[in-house]
Amino acid sequence: MSISPNDPVTPLPDGLILAIDIGGTKMAIGLVDDDGNVLAADRTPSPANQLGDAMWDALNRLADRVLATAGNPELAGVGVGCAGPMIWPEGIVSPTNIVGWRDFPLRRLLEQRFPGVPVRLHNDAICMAIAENWKGAAQGHQNALGMVVSTGVGGGLISDGRLINGGFGNAGHIGHIVIDPDGPACRCGGRGCLEAIARGPATSAWAVEEGWSPLEPGDPANAETLAKDARAGDLVAIEAYRRAGSAVGVGLASVAALLDLDIAVVGGGLSQAGELLMGPVRLAFAEHAGMTFVKRMKIERAQLDQEAGVVGAAALFADGGRYWNA
Amino acid sequence: MSISPNDPVTPLPDGLILAIDIGGTKMAIGLVDDDGNVLAADRTPSPANQLGDAMWDALNRLADRVLATAGNPELAGVGVGCAGPMIWPEGIVSPTNIVGWRDFPLRRLLEQRFPGVPVRLHNDAICMAIAENWKGAAQGHQNALGMVVSTGVGGGLISDGRLINGGFGNAGHIGHIVIDPDGPACRCGGRGCLEAIARGPATSAWAVEEGWSPLEPGDPANAETLAKDARAGDLVAIEAYRRAGSAVGVGLASVAALLDLDIAVVGGGLSQAGELLMGPVRLAFAEHAGMTFVKRMKIERAQLDQEAGVVGAAALFADGGRYWNA
Repeated sequence: MSISPNDPVTPLPDGLILAIDIGGTKMAIGLVDDDGNVLAADRTPSPANQLGDAMWDALNRLADRVLATAGNPELAGVGVGCAGPMIWPEGIVSPTNIVGWRDFPLRRLLEQRFPGVPVRLHNDAICMAIAENWKGAAQGHQNALGMVVSTGVGGGLISDGRLINGGFGNAGHIGHIVIDPDGPACRCGGRGCLEAIARGPATSAWAVEEGWSPLEPGDPANAETLAKDARAGDLVAIEAYRRAGSAVGVGLASVAALLDLDIAVVGGGLSQAGELLMGPVRLAFAEHAGMTFVKRMKIERAQLDQEAGVVGAAALFADGGRYWNA
Repeated sequence: MSISPNDPVTPLPDGLILAIDIGGTKMAIGLVDDDGNVLAADRTPSPANQLGDAMWDALNRLADRVLATAGNPELAGVGVGCAGPMIWPEGIVSPTNIVGWRDFPLRRLLEQRFPGVPVRLHNDAICMAIAENWKGAAQGHQNALGMVVSTGVGGGLISDGRLINGGFGNAGHIGHIVIDPDGPACRCGGRGCLEAIARGPATSAWAVEEGWSPLEPGDPANAETLAKDARAGDLVAIEAYRRAGSAVGVGLASVAALLDLDIAVVGGGLSQAGELLMGPVRLAFAEHAGMTFVKRMKIERAQLDQEAGVVGAAALFADGGRYWNA
């Protein structure tokens, strides 16, 4: 009588998807087949600090190069994951870290660039989440969170077998659930958000305040150096990762209670510190997950990491509407 | 290409729904038409402290009475909202406050009692939420939270136009998102949950600890008396409602960020204190809602309150699968 989330509403596209992953640091483009294999891919630094057409031109040069490498195949679709915020599903983007794009009509411009080819665009954190659900650590699960802990903290949600969009395509913003109502101010304008506590720059800044400086002079005082120093036994560095991981674990307990999830997948730069982050994540989760259905949620590290953006952009066309309902 | 959440997948049933609302204090049964009108309804105290068949017998007597009053009409369905926890969609219930029902196969027994009539059963807080979305304060919204602040704190979620169930039908448990990681122990086994802070008994207990006792000797020291005394100017009582409302507001900011909601509807006993609760809810929400898409969420009081359980139980058959996807 009712729709099963897995009914194939749209057939899988026969051809290849041009999958575009756009961030403030780099952009990556790949050709992805309907099994999620990345057949050709390339990347380039993002000229994110330049005004004017620099970003758009760089994107087109990279796309031309990837397409030429593959012999300019026919495309079944163009999928895009882009840093937010954006107006969705229109795909009008204003990425915080890309100064030249303000209300930039990326989806429409790509539709003009590839006439007759459907273009789908979503938030990059959502693309990471659907990539992990399609081909990564959350594969096969009908209720899953994918999240990144990096310069920012973001995520995407699969519920009852489908991507949740929310009213304006912003569902999944786990970085802005409140962990500590009296906590630090967040760049979003709120206070005590998960992102304000656990993002990389906040984590390394907290360590610096507590007296940490990189053990190796010349290393930048960032989350990556912090992980290296924690592995070398620096107690403040270890504590900084514990603090970030605990906040993530508390957030996961809240999301598991709210959405009755099977699995949460954690990716992003800080997750590459491994158990330094993930141990405290699991400890805090265990302390705050009370009910059986909350406790049952598995917590895993992301599998696709580097490729997640491109695979997720292609996933917007996968599995018959499972990840696209606009 | 993709499913619209509003596609009529199942037709509206032509006949009447027997709608059953079962709680630890009372049970209510009504006949509801496909416009959500309650045509006949009655209620009875729940013999929730009795073992054996007392609850089931009371339910059947009440159902017989309601059906007889209406001339024993043909039924298009039987909808049930029941206190949790439960195994869903099987409808095997073990309500905390109903001692005689442990792994009680309520859905199957009702299918036997009404042969050939489809039976649908969900958590009572979910029924409240879909009632408000179908016919109450959240009507017309595709992304909505309905919640109750009462002896417990619970809720249900509509996202992209559909009820979210989660893996085992437990989605919507807003009472167990973490408000204060170092907060009071929760009866769920966790710590700092919204319910542990804001539920009625916790709110009145906090006031008692702070020195409050009912202004009118003989009044019970509960949330209702607390509201009365707050209206009479008792500062501890006012502060107790502020504390509960703030916790709700922080929780709403988190849920709005996570799910990009249009509206949150607050019902339940404590919400009947009006601005004593809702003022602090809105203040805390405003302090913690940073991003535009979070701020946009409206917060309203529930409209259906007393009738919500019966209307929500009927709503399980409404709007072509919008609220039933099992």
